[in-house]
Amino acid sequence: MNDLATPRLSPATLSALADIVGAERVLTDAESAAHYGRDWTRFHTPTPSAVLLPGSIEEVQDIVRLAAREGLAIVPSGGRTGLSAGAVAANGELVIALDRLSSIADFNPVERTVRCGAGVITEQLQQFAEGQGLYYPVDFASAGSSQIGGNISTNAGGIKVIRHGMTRDWVAGLKLVTGTGELLDLNRGLVKNNAGYDLRQLVIGAEGTLGIVVEATMALARPPQDPAVLVLGVPDMGAIMQVLAAYQAKMDLQAFEFFSELALQKVVEHQGLQRPFETPAEYYALLEFEQLTGADMEQAMALFEHCVEQGWVVDGVASQSVAQAESLWRLREDISETISRWTPYKNDISTTVAKVPDFLSEVEQVVNGAYPDFEIVWFGHIGDGNVHLNVLKPDDLPVDEFKQRCGEVSQWVFEIVQRYGGSVSAEHGVGLLKKDYLPYSRSELEIDLMRQIKRAFDPAGIMNPGKIFDA
Amino acid sequence: MNDLATPRLSPATLSALADIVGAERVLTDAESAAHYGRDWTRFHTPTPSAVLLPGSIEEVQDIVRLAAREGLAIVPSGGRTGLSAGAVAANGELVIALDRLSSIADFNPVERTVRCGAGVITEQLQQFAEGQGLYYPVDFASAGSSQIGGNISTNAGGIKVIRHGMTRDWVAGLKLVTGTGELLDLNRGLVKNNAGYDLRQLVIGAEGTLGIVVEATMALARPPQDPAVLVLGVPDMGAIMQVLAAYQAKMDLQAFEFFSELALQKVVEHQGLQRPFETPAEYYALLEFEQLTGADMEQAMALFEHCVEQGWVVDGVASQSVAQAESLWRLREDISETISRWTPYKNDISTTVAKVPDFLSEVEQVVNGAYPDFEIVWFGHIGDGNVHLNVLKPDDLPVDEFKQRCGEVSQWVFEIVQRYGGSVSAEHGVGLLKKDYLPYSRSELEIDLMRQIKRAFDPAGIMNPGKIFDA
Repeated sequence: MNDLATPRLSPATLSALADIVGAERVLTDAESAAHYGRDWTRFHTPTPSAVLLPGSIEEVQDIVRLAAREGLAIVPSGGRTGLSAGAVAANGELVIALDRLSSIADFNPVERTVRCGAGVITEQLQQFAEGQGLYYPVDFASAGSSQIGGNISTNAGGIKVIRHGMTRDWVAGLKLVTGTGELLDLNRGLVKNNAGYDLRQLVIGAEGTLGIVVEATMALARPPQDPAVLVLGVPDMGAIMQVLAAYQAKMDLQAFEFFSELALQKVVEHQGLQRPFETPAEYYALLEFEQLTGADMEQAMALFEHCVEQGWVVDGVASQSVAQAESLWRLREDISETISRWTPYKNDISTTVAKVPDFLSEVEQVVNGAYPDFEIVWFGHIGDGNVHLNVLKPDDLPVDEFKQRCGEVSQWVFEIVQRYGGSVSAEHGVGLLKKDYLPYSRSELEIDLMRQIKRAFDPAGIMNPGKIFDA
Repeated sequence: MNDLATPRLSPATLSALADIVGAERVLTDAESAAHYGRDWTRFHTPTPSAVLLPGSIEEVQDIVRLAAREGLAIVPSGGRTGLSAGAVAANGELVIALDRLSSIADFNPVERTVRCGAGVITEQLQQFAEGQGLYYPVDFASAGSSQIGGNISTNAGGIKVIRHGMTRDWVAGLKLVTGTGELLDLNRGLVKNNAGYDLRQLVIGAEGTLGIVVEATMALARPPQDPAVLVLGVPDMGAIMQVLAAYQAKMDLQAFEFFSELALQKVVEHQGLQRPFETPAEYYALLEFEQLTGADMEQAMALFEHCVEQGWVVDGVASQSVAQAESLWRLREDISETISRWTPYKNDISTTVAKVPDFLSEVEQVVNGAYPDFEIVWFGHIGDGNVHLNVLKPDDLPVDEFKQRCGEVSQWVFEIVQRYGGSVSAEHGVGLLKKDYLPYSRSELEIDLMRQIKRAFDPAGIMNPGKIFDA
C-alpha cells in the first residue's frame, strides 16, 4: 500500500477496502496500476485509484456496497485482452480484478455444464472440457489469458462462431453483482425457463456496465471429430462468398475465415511460417470441417475442384494430419499478435453475410483513398459477415496523430456500416473506443433504453461508467 | 361496428381507430370478442373493447400512439394458442391482432434467413423453408395456428429443443412497436453484433409487455436427414435419465420426449391409435435421431440392447419408414389435444436435467396425495428438464372449484420447483395464470428490474398490462 500512483482514495476508504479483501490485496503501486488498469488497447493512460483482488462473491458485494456509498466508480477486470478499452481505468476508478474467483466446480456430465468463477481462463475451461471428453467451442487468439467473466461481459466470439455461436450461446446461468451490491442468480443452468424477461441475456455483452459477472454455469459440447483444414487462394471478395455458399450447401463448416495477402506476408515473415502454397492470391479462405467419415474429405475435395473450375479458387492445400491443420491455423490465428507491434487501429465491423462483398468494396475504396501511406491488413470471420480492418501505424508517426487520422476515417467507414445496417462492433464491444460511433449502429431510442436499463441495475452509476455510452 | 359486446370506447375513439385501419377492421361484435379475446386457456371471460386488424407496421404504430394518448390498454394477439393467458383480454383492452402482417419476404439463401410478418403462421414458415430445401426447427402441437410474433413473444419451445433450442435461437432480428408507438429495428439479421445491449433478447419472451413484435428475420436450418423414431417402455424416471445419458453419449438426438402410461391410454383410446407394443410400462420415452448413414440405426439398436440389459428399458419399437415415424410421433403429439376435453390444469415446470428424477418424485408425491380423485397425465420434454403436469377435471366438478383446488396444490408444487432452482414456466410463459407464482422462480429484485425495464419501453403502461407481473 505504498507508491500511490494516483492518490485519490482517503486513508479511511483504503482501510475499509483492506478490511474487506486484506491489505495485501489492495494494490496502489504504479506497476499494478499499469498492469491492471488497461486492456490490450494502448490509447489511454491507466490511472486506477486502487486495484482490488477479492477472493469471494461476498467480498465483491462488500466492495460494491462501499463504492456505492462513497460514489466510487468501478472497472471490472478479467484477462484484459479486450480491444475496445472496455476494461480501461483511465479516470481514477477502482479496479476489481476477478483473478482469484478461478474455481471450476460442479461438472455435470448429464447436462454437460460446469460452474466457473469469473476468473477462470478460457484455455483452462477448454482443457477442463477436454479432460471430460467434451469441448468448449468458443475460441480465439487470446484464449490463454482472457477470462470467462470478461468473455461473458463482451459476448466474445472468435473463430468457431459459424458453427457454435458466440459466448452467449454457452452461458446456462450467471451470477451478477449489481451496482447496489446485490446478487442476481440468473437462469441457474436451466435449459428451459420462460418465467419472465431473460435478464441473463441483457448482462451478456453489457461490458460490466450493469454489474460484475462473478460466476457462470457454462455449457460444453461434444468434441469435433478429426478436424481438417483447407486454405484456399481466392481472387476477390465475391469469389470468397461463392466458395462459402458452395461449401455450406453441402457441409457443416466449423470455421470459415479469411485474410488478405498482406496479412499472410506479415505472418509468414514474423512468425517464421511457410506460405500455404506458392501461387499468390488477393485473399485466402481458411475452412475447417469435421471428418466423421472418409466421405467428408472427398466431398471437400470435390467442392474444391468445382470452385477451381468456376474460377473462384486459384490454388489450395488440405491438411493431412492434426499437426498440419494446426500449422495452417497459425496463418490466421497469429495475425493479431504479429501486427500488434504496429499499434494497429482496429475496426471490427460486420454486415449481413450476403452483403459482405459490396460492403467491403465500398469500405476498401474509402480506406485506400484515405490512407495511401498506411498499410491495411484485412482478416476476419467472413462466414459470419464480420471483418477486421487493421490500419498499421507507420513507425515514425506519433500515436496521437495516428489515432486522430484513423478516427476521422472511421467516421466514413461507419457511415458505410450504417447504410448497410451493419454493426460498428461485431465482437469487440464498444468500451471507450467505439462509444462515439455507437449511433451508427443503434438508434437514439435504443441508446436511451440502454441508459434507463443501466439506471435500474446501477442507480448510483458506478459500474464501468462512460463505457458503451455516457450516462 | 355494431353489437358492442363491451361498449367501453367512445364513438370518437372508435371513429379514430376506424380512420387508421378501416371501419370494417374494427370489430366490436360479441363473436369477435370471444374469438380474438382469449387464447387456449379457458379461465377468463374475454371482454375486449374492440378488436383491431391493422395491415401494416405504420397502422400498428398509429393505434399504439392513439392508445398511449388515451390511456387504453392493448393486448397483442397472434394465433392465441398460448397456455398461460398471455393473450387474454379480460379487462376491456384493445386487441391488436397481427393476422394481416403475414408476408414472407427477402429469403436469403446465403444467410439462410427470411423476413416474416408477425402474423405468419409457424407451419407456413416450416413449409416455406421446406420449399427452399431448408428447415424451420421450432415445432410443437399448435404449429398450425400459432404465429411467429407470438412464438417470439413467448419464446416458444416444443419438441426439438434438445437439438435446436427455443425460438430465441432462430430470431436474427426483430421489429418492435414500443408502448410509445416508436419502432425499434433490433439486430437487423446480423450474425455478430456486440454494439451495446442486445435488446432483441429482452423482447423475446416478454409476452407483449414491452411492445408489439411486428416483424422478424428468422434463421433457417439444414433439414434433418431421414429421421427415425424409437419408442421405449421404461420402468421409472431414474431409468429414463439413464437412457437419455446412454444415447446422448453416443448420438446427437433430435428429440427426447416422455409420457406416462395414462397419457398413452388416453391418446390410444381417443385418437384411434395403436399401442407401440403390448408390454405395459410406467413411462415411455420417444427418441428421434438422424440416419446420416446406416450406422446410426445400428448404433441406436446397440444402445437399445444395452438399455434392456441394464433393466432401463422393458420393450421398444423402432420406425421402419417415415410414415411409421410420424405415427409414433402422434402418440406424443396428440396428447395435448386429447386431454383438452377435460379442461386440464397445466403445470409447465422445469429443473436442471440431472435433478429431474428426484424432482419428479417429490412432485408426484405431493400431487398424488393432494388429488387422489383426479387423473394426472404426465408428459414433456424430459431431455430439457421440462415436464408437463396435467390435472384432468372430473366431469362433474365446476370449473371454478376445480381451478381453485388446483391453484392450492400448485403452490406446493412450486415450492418444490423453488427448492430445485427450477422454473414455474419452462416454455408456456407467465401471462395471467402463472403471475402469482413468479416469485418462486424469480427474486424480488429481478421482478423489480423487469418492472423498471417495462417502464422504459412502455412508460404509459398500456402494453399487455397485468401479464407476467403487476406494474
